[in-house]
Amino acid sequence: MERIKALMYGVGAMAQTFMVKMMVEKGVDVVGAVARTSNIGKDLGEVCGLDRPLGVKISNDPDEVVATHQFDIAVLTVTSLLPDMYDHIARCLSHGINVITIAEEALYPWVTSPVVTAKLDKLARQNNVTVTGSGYQDIYWANMITQLAGAAQKIDSITGTARYNISDYGPEVANIHFVGDSEDEFHAKIAKQGLLPSFLRNCAELICADMGLTISGIKESCEPIKDDVDIYVKGLDKTIPAGKLVGCNDICELETEQGVTIKTLMMAKCYKEGELDINKWEIRGYPDILVENYSPPTDVSTCATVVNRIPDVINAEPGFITCEKLPKLKYRAYPLHYYLTR
Amino acid sequence: MERIKALMYGVGAMAQTFMVKMMVEKGVDVVGAVARTSNIGKDLGEVCGLDRPLGVKISNDPDEVVATHQFDIAVLTVTSLLPDMYDHIARCLSHGINVITIAEEALYPWVTSPVVTAKLDKLARQNNVTVTGSGYQDIYWANMITQLAGAAQKIDSITGTARYNISDYGPEVANIHFVGDSEDEFHAKIAKQGLLPSFLRNCAELICADMGLTISGIKESCEPIKDDVDIYVKGLDKTIPAGKLVGCNDICELETEQGVTIKTLMMAKCYKEGELDINKWEIRGYPDILVENYSPPTDVSTCATVVNRIPDVINAEPGFITCEKLPKLKYRAYPLHYYLTR
Repeated sequence: MERIKALMYGVGAMAQTFMVKMMVEKGVDVVGAVARTSNIGKDLGEVCGLDRPLGVKISNDPDEVVATHQFDIAVLTVTSLLPDMYDHIARCLSHGINVITIAEEALYPWVTSPVVTAKLDKLARQNNVTVTGSGYQDIYWANMITQLAGAAQKIDSITGTARYNISDYGPEVANIHFVGDSEDEFHAKIAKQGLLPSFLRNCAELICADMGLTISGIKESCEPIKDDVDIYVKGLDKTIPAGKLVGCNDICELETEQGVTIKTLMMAKCYKEGELDINKWEIRGYPDILVENYSPPTDVSTCATVVNRIPDVINAEPGFITCEKLPKLKYRAYPLHYYLTR
Repeated sequence: MERIKALMYGVGAMAQTFMVKMMVEKGVDVVGAVARTSNIGKDLGEVCGLDRPLGVKISNDPDEVVATHQFDIAVLTVTSLLPDMYDHIARCLSHGINVITIAEEALYPWVTSPVVTAKLDKLARQNNVTVTGSGYQDIYWANMITQLAGAAQKIDSITGTARYNISDYGPEVANIHFVGDSEDEFHAKIAKQGLLPSFLRNCAELICADMGLTISGIKESCEPIKDDVDIYVKGLDKTIPAGKLVGCNDICELETEQGVTIKTLMMAKCYKEGELDINKWEIRGYPDILVENYSPPTDVSTCATVVNRIPDVINAEPGFITCEKLPKLKYRAYPLHYYLTR
């Protein structure tokens, strides 16, 4: 078996802090790197906190990079919403490169962006490769929940409550969560653009797909979050004054034809000192099943999950294969190419 | 697709309280029932709390029953340890009947009872059927943990702490946990019979198998549990006086060649008022991942999991297929035969 050759596509907060180091530790050869504006021309290893250069210059010319190597996989950490990701994903698929992305909408985009998803699915099949969305949400907000649902005889509702720190991520995440806006700006933006799909809405849709439930109705709302102290936001390198928005609550409720309701509350905010991530789900029915992760490591698990998923994506059938269709995620005790089956 | 025909093999606490009702609700035809001594000749539906007779007489002649119908699956709820289950399982397999059992050791018996397991594996293959151990432990003590482990980059240790109420189960479970014994009797039994495999030891061994870890050492110990009040035990229909044993703590520690340690503490006791089941796991490494089920429904989930697993077992390749090799457990919104693929 040959080692896996990877392209780091997007060299922002996640790539610099975790993803490249994790791939190198798991025996992946990261042989290409693409960024938009920062760190162009620098060595990827130096930018990503490795103790040695990787011999990979960060490029701002993705078309040139995808044509240079025979990549097995591209790890895309660019932005959250699928329409914004289309060109990036399509570029990789067209060159026969499998794609895994932390773009949150990509977890299950068939309802919120059906046209873009179908186009990418077709392109992937044509090129005999796979595209999958993954990250923290793959397990903690999706596959852990549907697996536990299998320990119930009858389910009336599934309620998920999650909170994470916007400051752990890059400016892309901050911008779509109204960080720094006034309440008036929040309402004006919502009036103009409508509600963007909340990350947990895509998870709720994946949960329905995985459980064989047919969605019959969707209600969504979004509430601004302010705080009473100034909060420094690492990802933006600026301080949001008290009274300005530091995030938003996305509330979503899905009804299904089978009578199961999925309710989610996603609290995305820039934390003040002492705030912890939250992940808490209640499956109500017979029996009631409650599960909670205390202080879940949202950012680290996002990257560890993506890295451990790489063999699953390469092994998968071609197409836009959402993560509930992949095998149960596993810990990788060995270099990732040991887990390849094709 | 034809409806699934099941044999209820063992009509004790689990079958009477949950299992038969759950199967009937999920569109399974329970067309045979075997018990040892109680309720022989009575109708299974009446004994198991259905609002109507099922037209199935409970028999104490298992050889006759397995030869009577073309069963697709036998659900075995007899006792906990695999050597005691051998004849029952072998009888079903020999007649071409798939088996799912809540016998706790059956979850992963390859280390604690290798010879018996290998014989059953061979017999299953010869008859083109599958035998699997499942129950609460399938998800809460095993597959939920290994799936979450996939959200980690590096793991040093996995520590599981669980407690359940012996009173929820039948006399078989009470007897192997020293209920009603004096401390002297406890020590005499351990000296004579050695330690029986603790339920969480078999889970720890499954966790290692699922994570690709090679066990290099096992340490086990067992401590008696007493309480300071008299405790009524439903499964035995008797009261254990204060000072006599109401269960035991099983402690197990597995070392692996890959450097991951698995530690489990299983508290099996007869509860006094107000005590709740516990399920709490800590995955320590990078990152730390903590998961807890508040007041987990150990008994109901045991039966719901087994019922939802029935299609997986029928669909599986022949042999002794432990549950980490089955597909991710799913909620069954439809009658179980809708999920059959073979």
